[in-house]
Parts: sequence; structure tokens; C-alpha cells
Amino acid sequence: MTKQGRFLVVEGLEGAGKSTAIQTITDWLQQQGVQLVSTREPGGTPLAEQIRSLVKEVQAEHLTPEAELLLMYAARVQLLRNVIEPALARGDWVLADRHDMSSRAYQGGGRQLSSQLIDGIRQAVLGPCRPDLTLYLDIDPAEGLARAQARGELDRIEREQLAFFERTRAVYLAIAAEEPNVVVIDAGQPLAVVQQSILTELDHFWKTTHAALA
Amino acid sequence: MTKQGRFLVVEGLEGAGKSTAIQTITDWLQQQGVQLVSTREPGGTPLAEQIRSLVKEVQAEHLTPEAELLLMYAARVQLLRNVIEPALARGDWVLADRHDMSSRAYQGGGRQLSSQLIDGIRQAVLGPCRPDLTLYLDIDPAEGLARAQARGELDRIEREQLAFFERTRAVYLAIAAEEPNVVVIDAGQPLAVVQQSILTELDHFWKTTHAALA
Ligand SMILES: Nc1ncnc2c1ncn2[C@@H]1O[C@H](COP(=O)(O)OP(=O)(O)O)[C@@H](O)[C@H]1O
Ligand SMILES: Nc1ncnc2c1ncn2[C@@H]1O[C@H](COP(=O)(O)OP(=O)(O)O)[C@@H](O)[C@H]1O
Ligand SMILES: [Mg+2]
Ligand SMILES: [Mg+2]
Repeated sequence: MTKQGRFLVVEGLEGAGKSTAIQTITDWLQQQGVQLVSTREPGGTPLAEQIRSLVKEVQAEHLTPEAELLLMYAARVQLLRNVIEPALARGDWVLADRHDMSSRAYQGGGRQLSSQLIDGIRQAVLGPCRPDLTLYLDIDPAEGLARAQARGELDRIEREQLAFFERTRAVYLAIAAEEPNVVVIDAGQPLAVVQQSILTELDHFWKTTHAALA
Repeated sequence: MTKQGRFLVVEGLEGAGKSTAIQTITDWLQQQGVQLVSTREPGGTPLAEQIRSLVKEVQAEHLTPEAELLLMYAARVQLLRNVIEPALARGDWVLADRHDMSSRAYQGGGRQLSSQLIDGIRQAVLGPCRPDLTLYLDIDPAEGLARAQARGELDRIEREQLAFFERTRAVYLAIAAEEPNVVVIDAGQPLAVVQQSILTELDHFWKTTHAALA
């Protein structure tokens, strides 16, 4: 079997269950003997984690939507060039807690920045690297926020109004409907059911991948 | 006389004499009774100063040219929205140590990023706010760097090769040649001569401005 890295992404609103899903996926892939690199966004490199702090912290100064977008892509390009692309080039798998779809949904939907601006930046900085599979965990925003709130204090973005997350979810669903490689998981179900859906998708992806390589 | 703010920018390579010029301009404008707000880029707001540190510090991780560009514009949009535009709206004058021309020259010339990428971001984030007068202090890069070196330790950008600054200077000169409101000052001359050239330009700008308002 050829060693061939794959790029998997888990997406969704706060409290959707991304971190929980990533644990499940990590366990499953490690059982298959996959060499796995895990990332989170914004962040995942020393510089990108410094940018994450800027974006997440509640500060006195208003962070403009445009600066937020630019910071998100600055962090992303650091992670892509310095971690994700080298890992895939080595043949490792990459498992990402958020990636580009988050910016399209949050900055495009939540902040209502134009897709012309966002796509211009995306096209210029992303390069050819795209996820092989994105699991979008779809959750009612109120339910997700309640879960996140139970987990601890809310950061700058988590403090947004419900309408912000409704707009974000709408863009998530619109992208999922129109792009291949994005699978929608109903994350409002009980945890055991969600985990079973994730493992079913993963098993299907695994078999398709290895059939293609055979 | 109507109270009417103006946006002045001083540009040039490291060691060109920007900080020195800004002191001269500040003294002159204060003598005219102008209410003045001074800025520097990258930086000038608490968030933008944090971004400045990211960009200027020598770090182990390679900062990609794309991330550098995005960080520069993130800092710039914070400064524009939160400091420069409000100051001009109040009728204050703004005196800026570097602005947008720096990114076009350093990231476009020095780093050789496409002007398509840079202009796409500029168009999206700058809005209608443009300098009324830019004084570009033109200096031979080797001479500027020698002056900067005498001043203290060099930061991440100041450590670039001479060819980087030659490319940056070429873009500075190209922009100056084609855009109105940009005046080239020969900054290789003795300090007293440079200061006299600056004050002559300033006096001319002042008279033109006030003739227009009369
Ligand atoms: N399907 C589920 N049903 C109920 N609670 C869940 C479910 N999935 C995750 N949780 C809980 O919700 C909280 C947020 O989950 P987490 O995985 O941290 O979400 P995210 O990383 O997307 O913000 C955690 O306390 C987690 O145990
Ligand atoms: N025309 C000049 N001739 C010689 N030295 C100069 C001249 N202008 C400035 N300097 C000196 O060069 C150094 C760099 O000037 P500075 O104003 O800090 O440049 P910048 O802010 O553009 O980096 C300072 O020590 C300054 O005193
Ligand atoms: Mg999480
Ligand atoms: Mg200076």
C-alpha cells in the first residue's frame, strides 16, 4: 500500500462537538496505524498561536471585521506552509480542528464581509492545498452555545449574538450543499449517535481512499 | 478659516530620516497652531502595536510573505478606523510615520508579492481615506542601513539583504513618479539641507491648502 497523506477537517459552531469528534477520529486512525498530525485554527504554530490570542481575547479596542479576517488568514497561511503542507508531503495524515470553511462561515456569514474580499485572499494565500474530507458538525447555535458555556468562560467570538451564529450556520450549510468532500453530521443527536455517524463516514472514506490506491 | 484636517505621511527606507523629519514637521505645524495626531505603522493602536511586535521580532518560525502582508493590513485597518479617520473627522491633522505606500514598496517590491493580491486587499480595507501629502525620503539603501545600524540593533525586516531594499526603493520611486500628492525628497543630503527641503514643501502645501479654503 502506498503511503499517502490525507487532509481531514472537522468544522462547526462552538459547542458542536469538534474536539470530542477529533478524539474519536484520532483513536480510530491510530488503530489503522496512520501517522497523524493534529492542528487547530486559528493557531497551530508559535506565530499563529500568538495571532489566535489577539483574535480570541476580549480587548478594550474594537477589532474591525476586516482586521479579524486578515489575522485569520495570516494564521492560516503560517499553519499551511509550516505544518500542513510539510506533513502531507511526508505522507502523514492531517486532522484539523477548523480550517478555511470557518472563515467563510464566520467572517462571511457572521461578520457579513463580502465573498469577493474573502475569495480574493483565499485564492492568493491557500495555494492548491484543499481538504480531502470535511466533517461539518451541524448544531442549533443556542444548543452549541449552551454546551460551550457549560465548558467555561466565553471568548470574544463566543460572546456574539445568536443572530451572528445563525448567519454563520447558514453559510456553513450553503457551502456543504454545494461542495464535494463536505459531509454534514447532525450534531444535535446524543453523543453515541454522533460518534457512530462520524465513524461510518470515516470508514467509508478509508475504503474509498484505499480502493483508489489499490 | 475653516477647521479642516489633513493627512500627511512620511515614507522611506530604514535610516532615511523619517523620525527626524517628523520632529521637524511636528514643530512647524505646532507653530501654526495645528491640532496634530501622530501615528506610526505598523502600530499606533494597542492591537496594532501587538501586531507590530509579531512582524518586527526575530522569531524561530519563518514568517511567510503572505502572512506578513496580511498582518500589515490588519494593523493598518485598526489604525485607520480607530485613530486616523476619527482624527480627520474631528478636523485634526494626522502625521504618519509610514502608511500604505510602505506595504506596496516592501511587500510588493522587497517580497515580490503580486500587485493583484496587494491591490485587492488595499481596495477592500482602505476605504476612501488617502494621504493629502506624502513626503518620500529617498535614500541609497546602504547609506540608510548604515545610519539605522548606528542607531542600534536591527529588527527582522532591517536584517534583509541589500537587494531586498533596492527592490523596495524601486517601487517607492515608481509610485512617486506616477501618483499625485507624493513628493520625493533627496534624503542623502546633509540633515540641514533635507530639513530645508521638507519645510519648503510643507510651506507650499500649507499655502495651497489655505488658498483652497479661503
Ligand atoms: N452530541 C453531544 N451531545 C451532548 N453533548 C455533547 C455532544 N458532543 C459534545 N458534547 C459536549 O459539549 C461540549 C462541547 O463539545 P466540544 O467537543 O468541546 O465542542 P467544540 O470543540 O465544537 O467547541 C463538551 O462538554 C462535550 O462533552
Ligand atoms: N540627512 C541626514 N544625514 C545624516 N544623518 C541623518 C540624516 N537624517 C537622519 N540622520 C540620522 O540617521 C539616523 C536614522 O534617522 P531616522 O530619522 O531615525 O530614520 P528613520 O526613522 O527613517 O529610520 C539617525 O541617527 C539620524 O540622526
Ligand atoms: Mg473545541
Ligand atoms: Mg523611524
